[in-house]
Order: sequence, then structure tokens, then C-alpha cells
Amino acid sequence: MINEQNIRILLKNRPNGWPTEDDFEIEVSQIPSIKEGEILLETMWLSLDPYMRGRMNDAKSYADPVQIGAPMVGGAVAKVVESRSPMFVKNDIVEGRIGWQKYAVSSGIELRTVDKSLGPIQTAIGVLGMPGLTAYFGFLDVCEPRPGDIVVVSAASGAVGQVVGQIAKIMGCTVIGTAGSDEKIKFILDELGFDYGINYKSEDICESLDKFCPDGIDIYFDNVGGELTDAVMDRLRVGARISVCGQISQYNNSQLQLGPRNIGSLVRSQAKMEGFLVHAYSNKYPEGLDKMSKWIKEGKLKYKEDIVKGIENAPKTFIGMLNGENFGKTLIKVSDD
Amino acid sequence: MINEQNIRILLKNRPNGWPTEDDFEIEVSQIPSIKEGEILLETMWLSLDPYMRGRMNDAKSYADPVQIGAPMVGGAVAKVVESRSPMFVKNDIVEGRIGWQKYAVSSGIELRTVDKSLGPIQTAIGVLGMPGLTAYFGFLDVCEPRPGDIVVVSAASGAVGQVVGQIAKIMGCTVIGTAGSDEKIKFILDELGFDYGINYKSEDICESLDKFCPDGIDIYFDNVGGELTDAVMDRLRVGARISVCGQISQYNNSQLQLGPRNIGSLVRSQAKMEGFLVHAYSNKYPEGLDKMSKWIKEGKLKYKEDIVKGIENAPKTFIGMLNGENFGKTLIKVSDD
Repeated sequence: MINEQNIRILLKNRPNGWPTEDDFEIEVSQIPSIKEGEILLETMWLSLDPYMRGRMNDAKSYADPVQIGAPMVGGAVAKVVESRSPMFVKNDIVEGRIGWQKYAVSSGIELRTVDKSLGPIQTAIGVLGMPGLTAYFGFLDVCEPRPGDIVVVSAASGAVGQVVGQIAKIMGCTVIGTAGSDEKIKFILDELGFDYGINYKSEDICESLDKFCPDGIDIYFDNVGGELTDAVMDRLRVGARISVCGQISQYNNSQLQLGPRNIGSLVRSQAKMEGFLVHAYSNKYPEGLDKMSKWIKEGKLKYKEDIVKGIENAPKTFIGMLNGENFGKTLIKVSDD
Repeated sequence: MINEQNIRILLKNRPNGWPTEDDFEIEVSQIPSIKEGEILLETMWLSLDPYMRGRMNDAKSYADPVQIGAPMVGGAVAKVVESRSPMFVKNDIVEGRIGWQKYAVSSGIELRTVDKSLGPIQTAIGVLGMPGLTAYFGFLDVCEPRPGDIVVVSAASGAVGQVVGQIAKIMGCTVIGTAGSDEKIKFILDELGFDYGINYKSEDICESLDKFCPDGIDIYFDNVGGELTDAVMDRLRVGARISVCGQISQYNNSQLQLGPRNIGSLVRSQAKMEGFLVHAYSNKYPEGLDKMSKWIKEGKLKYKEDIVKGIENAPKTFIGMLNGENFGKTLIKVSDD
């Protein structure tokens, strides 16, 4: 550790539209020292998630923006390399909002110890962490699935979408996933057991929806927004439920769009569209984790990770993810286990 | 009755965009005769409602379009002038989907007898009929109001909006209404007890909302759509509920709009937007009527009607209503009581 240095990825500029690598600064510095009550963390796994694009803007949202010059925010799994806190001992594995930095000082507050018996430690920021819990509550609580429901999931091979589709199958629904490559479609069909897949880049979405769900759609789990949402809104069945989880197709719009259009389709179908944040369910996280880790052990719930090594690759990997270049849950492997 | 003739308003053309009087045909014909089991109705009051614009299109909706050459659909209060049915006797007052016609033959199915003790008979197609029930269930069931909630109601002096705002006051909410003239605003403030009013034609909606509800909006009862919805979506509080009742600002768009934009605001605020049709609550109508007639008798619920005489004036009155020229619930007085 003596010869090592810290690497932190700082927000340099607020992007106007698509971010570029120039919007990030890779800062090399000394490993910080800790005071009484603090711990020093070495990041092992960093999660990259679409919501981070929102934090780069200086705009009203459900969380504060990242300040210029500050490390990018993000969930990570880290090892305690030094502790002057009674809460943690050296070599503990923890998860929390550690940010894009190789070494970090923490008071230990808001960190949780990773339960290694549930799965590989990086699942604590994947299928058994925020993205998985988002899928679990955003689908089960907001969409209230019933056996036989026709479910459309966008970004179906992504961190959240892959879990939503599999839970929908566990619940007895018919599941249509959309993704941006034939490889991803093959994966959700062959590996995850989705019923149908639509490659939105090569297929006519409306035609494919009419083919796979001629009688309409009961549930739409929306990670993407944009044209797919347009197509789904026009095909809602009576009493449809739309869980608005993400709108990745819209995050890099430099001009703010105006409010909703074509809302009449909600009236025609007496449908409900609900935005949600996973934090609202924090008191039910243990239930969700319990259920999902059981499903994983029973082979009913699989997960796919897209792993890139080296924290210095976080900016370009993040930009690629916003462009759909990832395949599965995007993780940066910062340190070896 | 011997010398009288029937007048029926038929759909002549499907309008592209705004309807004109030329899209309707006023047909004068003989009063029809009835067979065994039928009744002859003389329409006394005809309700004009924004939803009728949708019926003029040959488009997928929750109800079938009016056929070219057929009478326009619509709720009405009528007197039984001749009966060969055991269900009704002469001079009974009934309410049902009788359409834009002075005399109509009916089997009596789907007609309900008007309870004159509840209020003037035309309230059966107003505050104590479809518009009032739409307000009652669309607000209480979909919006789940709590005392102290900040409520925005569009088309606030209209048939539905005036009832929503008053029920919101009964429930202890703070109510902001929007309407298109100073006279309407004065009415909702002075007569109906709304807390604030915004004349959307003369005021900057965003500025006025920021003034009247600087901390945001809990409930939006949406009769109108369009720019007001844009402004409200940007000011939703966490857990907001949007009841999508109508979208009158959009009914005359000749080009179909694409799906919703700016849905990210639902996520930020974890808000719910739900379309509804009053028919879904038909098994609870007695409860709604009971409650509302009680409120009317207690002076807690008032209603304003905009009455035009003569069924031949229905087309131009309907077009004017779509343009906001009505003031209160639009009714055509077809026959004298």
C-alpha cells in the first residue's frame, strides 16, 4: 500500500447533452489518512448506473447534483483496509455510496456489511443491491402482476430489466423484452426465459408488438422512455400499469422536453403510470433480498454482469452504457479480491 | 304533439381538427311510432360534454364512434310521452344515453328514472349525473385527498371541475383552479370557495403556480392537458397523484401526438398518473349520489349550469364548449318541463 496512490474520478464540467470523457478528470493523489472514528476503504467494485447522468446536471431532482471538482457519486463494494472505528475491522467487506474513487475515507455511517453467503460480493451492488431491489419493488409493488399478464420490459438485458423479466416469468406472466442487439435478444430468450424479444434497432417496434401482443399490454416496466413508450401507450389494455423506472433515452437531451403528450391513452385504458424510487421501499429491502437470493439459489433468477477493469475506465464505460454498449449490469472492477 | 315534428342532429362528416357546424346535419322528420314493448321519449334536457368530440372520430377508443348519418350520442333527461312497455308510464322522467334528438324510441333498457327529490331534473345529467360522479370518484378514489393537500383543478368552472374543487374544499385541501376568463375565476373564488384562481389566457401559468403553491402540488385533476399539464408536471411534490379525466386542449389536434414526454418528473416525485372512466365505478354510483345530494342540501356543494334553448343550437354550442365559451355545465333545454 505504501507505493500506491489514490485515483479519483472528478466531475470537471457539466455536460450539455451527451457527456464526453473531457467532462471527467482523473486525479491521482496520495492515499488519504484517517482520524479517530474513521475507516479507510479500498474500492473493489464500482457500479455504473444510468441515474448518474442526472447527477451531472445542476437541476432539481430527487438528489443533489455532484459538485464540480467532486468525485462522481456511485454505489461500490469496498474492503476496509484500516479502521479507527469500533464499527468495522480490517478486511470487512462493505457496500455503500462510496463514489468513483479507489480509496475513500468514511465515517462508516450508511455503509452496510456485505453478506458473502448471499452471493459473490459484487451482487451487493447488482442483483442483490439497488438495481435488483429496483426491479423487485418497482415490478411487484407498482405493477401488481397477475398470472397471464402481458408484460413489456425495456432495456431487458440491463441491470434492472433482466431481473424484472425473470420475476415476471416467476409470477406467471408473458414477457416481451426490448434490447439493442441480436446478441442481447438471444440472451434474454435463451438464458433468461423471456417469451419474446424485440431488437429496437433493427425491428419496427410497433409491428413486433402487434405480432407478440396483438391484444395489448397489461404491464410496462419502463427503463428507457422515448419511442418505445409511444408505441406501448398506444397498446395499453384496460387497467394497465406502467412503472416508470428510468428514461435513459431522454437523459442526454440538452433541451428540456415539455410535459406529457397523448395522455388520452391512459384514459382510454384506465391505466396507471407511476414513477418510483427504490428508496421508498428501504424498510422492505430485507424481504426483497431474501426472496431474490432464494430465487437465485433455486436457479429461477439469473444475472449477467458486464465487467470492465480499472477505475480509470469508468468515464468511457459510463458513456458507453448510456449508449447501450453494455451487456448486463455494468461494473468496474477496481481492485482484485 | 300532432303538429310537431322530430328534430335530430346527425353526424354528417368526421371533422379533421376543429369541428364546424357543417359537420352536423339538422334533420327534421316525423315523430316515430312505437311498437309493443317500446316507449316514446321527448327530450327535455340534453347534456353536451367534451367526450363527444372523441365519438366523432373513427378511432380506437373506449366506446364506438358515432356512425356517419346517425344521431350524435349524449346523455339526456326525457319525459315518457307514450308507453307500450310495462317498465314506464306516461310522464315518467328518465335519464339515459338518448342522443341529440327531440323524440326517441327506446326499449327502456339502460334508462333510469330520475329521482326528483334529489334536485331539479337536469341535475341527473349534471352534478348528480355523469359529470358529478366523474368528479366524485375521479377525485376521491384516484387522487386519495388528505387534508392540507395542494390541489390544482383545470377547467375549474366546468361541469366536472366545479365539483372537484368543492369536494377538495370539503376534504380540507387547498384548491387552485384554472379557467379562461376573469368572470370564471371570480365565480370559483367567490361562489365556490376555491382558494386561488388562475386565468390561463391572461396570466403566466408557471408564475402563478409558483406564487400560489411555492412548495409544489400534491394532486392534479386534469380535464385539459397541454401546457397546464407541462407546468404542473414540473411542480409535483413527492407522492403526487394525477387523475387524468380529460384532455380537452388536445381533442381537436388533427395530427396524433406521440407518447408522453418529460415522464422523468413522475420519477423525481414518485408520482402516480392514472386515467379513469367513471363507468368503472358504476356499482358505487348510489354512494356518490347520496353523498353529493346531501352536500348540495347542506349548501356545501353548488353547481352552475350554462343553459342554451333549442336542440338546433346543439352543434354550435358544442363547438363553443370545446373552445371554452361555456360557463358551467353545458345543457341544451330541448323542451319545457
